[in-house]
Amino acid sequence: MAAAFVYKADAVRGRQWAEIFRAEAPDIDFRLWPDVGDPANVLYLAAWEPPTNLSGLFPNLKLLFSSGAGVDQFDFSALPPRLPVVRMVEPGIIRGMVEYVTHAVLDLHRDMPAYRRAQQRREWQPLKVRAAAERRVGVLGLGSLGQAVLSQLVTFGFDCAGWSRSRHALDGVHCHAGAAELHDFLARTDILVCLLPLTEATRGFLDDKVFARLPRGASLVHVGRGPHLQTADLLAALDSGQLSEAVLDVTEPEPLPAAHPLWAHERVRITPHIASMTRADTAARVVIDNLRRFARGESLLGLVDRARGY
Amino acid sequence: MAAAFVYKADAVRGRQWAEIFRAEAPDIDFRLWPDVGDPANVLYLAAWEPPTNLSGLFPNLKLLFSSGAGVDQFDFSALPPRLPVVRMVEPGIIRGMVEYVTHAVLDLHRDMPAYRRAQQRREWQPLKVRAAAERRVGVLGLGSLGQAVLSQLVTFGFDCAGWSRSRHALDGVHCHAGAAELHDFLARTDILVCLLPLTEATRGFLDDKVFARLPRGASLVHVGRGPHLQTADLLAALDSGQLSEAVLDVTEPEPLPAAHPLWAHERVRITPHIASMTRADTAARVVIDNLRRFARGESLLGLVDRARGY
Repeated sequence: MAAAFVYKADAVRGRQWAEIFRAEAPDIDFRLWPDVGDPANVLYLAAWEPPTNLSGLFPNLKLLFSSGAGVDQFDFSALPPRLPVVRMVEPGIIRGMVEYVTHAVLDLHRDMPAYRRAQQRREWQPLKVRAAAERRVGVLGLGSLGQAVLSQLVTFGFDCAGWSRSRHALDGVHCHAGAAELHDFLARTDILVCLLPLTEATRGFLDDKVFARLPRGASLVHVGRGPHLQTADLLAALDSGQLSEAVLDVTEPEPLPAAHPLWAHERVRITPHIASMTRADTAARVVIDNLRRFARGESLLGLVDRARGY
Repeated sequence: MAAAFVYKADAVRGRQWAEIFRAEAPDIDFRLWPDVGDPANVLYLAAWEPPTNLSGLFPNLKLLFSSGAGVDQFDFSALPPRLPVVRMVEPGIIRGMVEYVTHAVLDLHRDMPAYRRAQQRREWQPLKVRAAAERRVGVLGLGSLGQAVLSQLVTFGFDCAGWSRSRHALDGVHCHAGAAELHDFLARTDILVCLLPLTEATRGFLDDKVFARLPRGASLVHVGRGPHLQTADLLAALDSGQLSEAVLDVTEPEPLPAAHPLWAHERVRITPHIASMTRADTAARVVIDNLRRFARGESLLGLVDRARGY
């Protein structure tokens, strides 16, 4: 029997994966959930939300792929303990995120929220133009997304910094690491970009204490996950003037209910979780590449450290 | 007597120029209009609007500098016929323009106008994300600004083209030249960026005929000069759906009067001519560098071809 690969996520994308597997990995029996065939043959699963009782259902499962960028939707404690989990690292996600964050940072840097408000009042009111070198951008999270975003931002001449749990070195970026360097990082950041993974350690990270450490009038670009943000703290910081603007691509919950106060806040811009999208074509090819690596005994791209949760 | 340099433009910037000349070109007698000293000593003039009767006023004038990016504010027929005219080419102008146009193109590419309208309706409505490679950006005008803008846009993977009167070759850009290639350029352009110089040949260039050649639903980013645009034609093209969005940093007249219909159009965003600003510090140094080149008999950076008008 051929090794079977089960896809359990958006069906439209699943059919695109099926075509690519048929053309480029005909040796693998690609199946769209719930048509899994003989469960004993299922060695690989790609899912946004895995089925419960995974080891009972697929006793020979060798790899679990997340169909999207994060793995925070997985309950690791409910997964077979030694099952390798692979997150999605593919160029479509990275390019989309670089576009979104560059747009948001330029929007804030060039005072576009103020110009949109001036247009509503029909006011022609030039503001002082500041050079990018005078604008301090700070990125929380230095994974593949954070690194790609910073690589683009430095080309504009922004004064760039990054913070992550472990030490990184990036060209043209002031890198900060660990809790001990968080305050210095925040104190020098005019535009804060959140690209942290969502784990128990980062849930609620964006709170009044973090906002209070930023320079007065700083702005937030949140492209992590909704639960990173303490929404009430954000609204209070905007209303006190501690923060001047917020760009949110993720909220808690999603979709954001129509009655939520974020929608109508003059200094909040909301987009419906569209900063970056997995492209079905490149995602399927990245997974096939990882299956080949697995067969050759090579290391997997995007392998999750289950103890850290990302 | 020392050679005198007269500055006739914004007085605040003039005082910044004075400091830089004092420190870096003490051999030159820098003067702020109207305190010109002995007119016979004035060899150099930097102005936004030159005084009338220039040859009568400064009989020994050797160079005229524009204090800003354009020279369209000069009436060439009223200037001494053989007086060399130098436009401002300095990094502040270029960086500002790259920021503004990159922001505007990303705003249109990522459907931000539609998301802002959706936010007003409190609607969480993801739209299909298109790859930058599927988005055809076209820049009218391939001078120092157009070239710098395209160099940045290609790093995002946009499908980039440019059009100018004379032939250019730019890495990663489909270059079109002259009237014969204008239609092909327009037919392949989803986002049209106008960075043309303003001359008699380009006045009113952005009209119904140009808009009709673009693919239906294309967008305009206008960062040239107000008189390039036939405003009534733009409004008609937006209302018919031939164009979907317009971003205007320049208008005719400026400031745009409060009663003007552009202010309230849902698909027009207006900024008050802030895309790029000459930085006084770098501008003064660029002018000093040109004075040194002139003294050594070298070619001047930004020398205007008075027959072309730019």
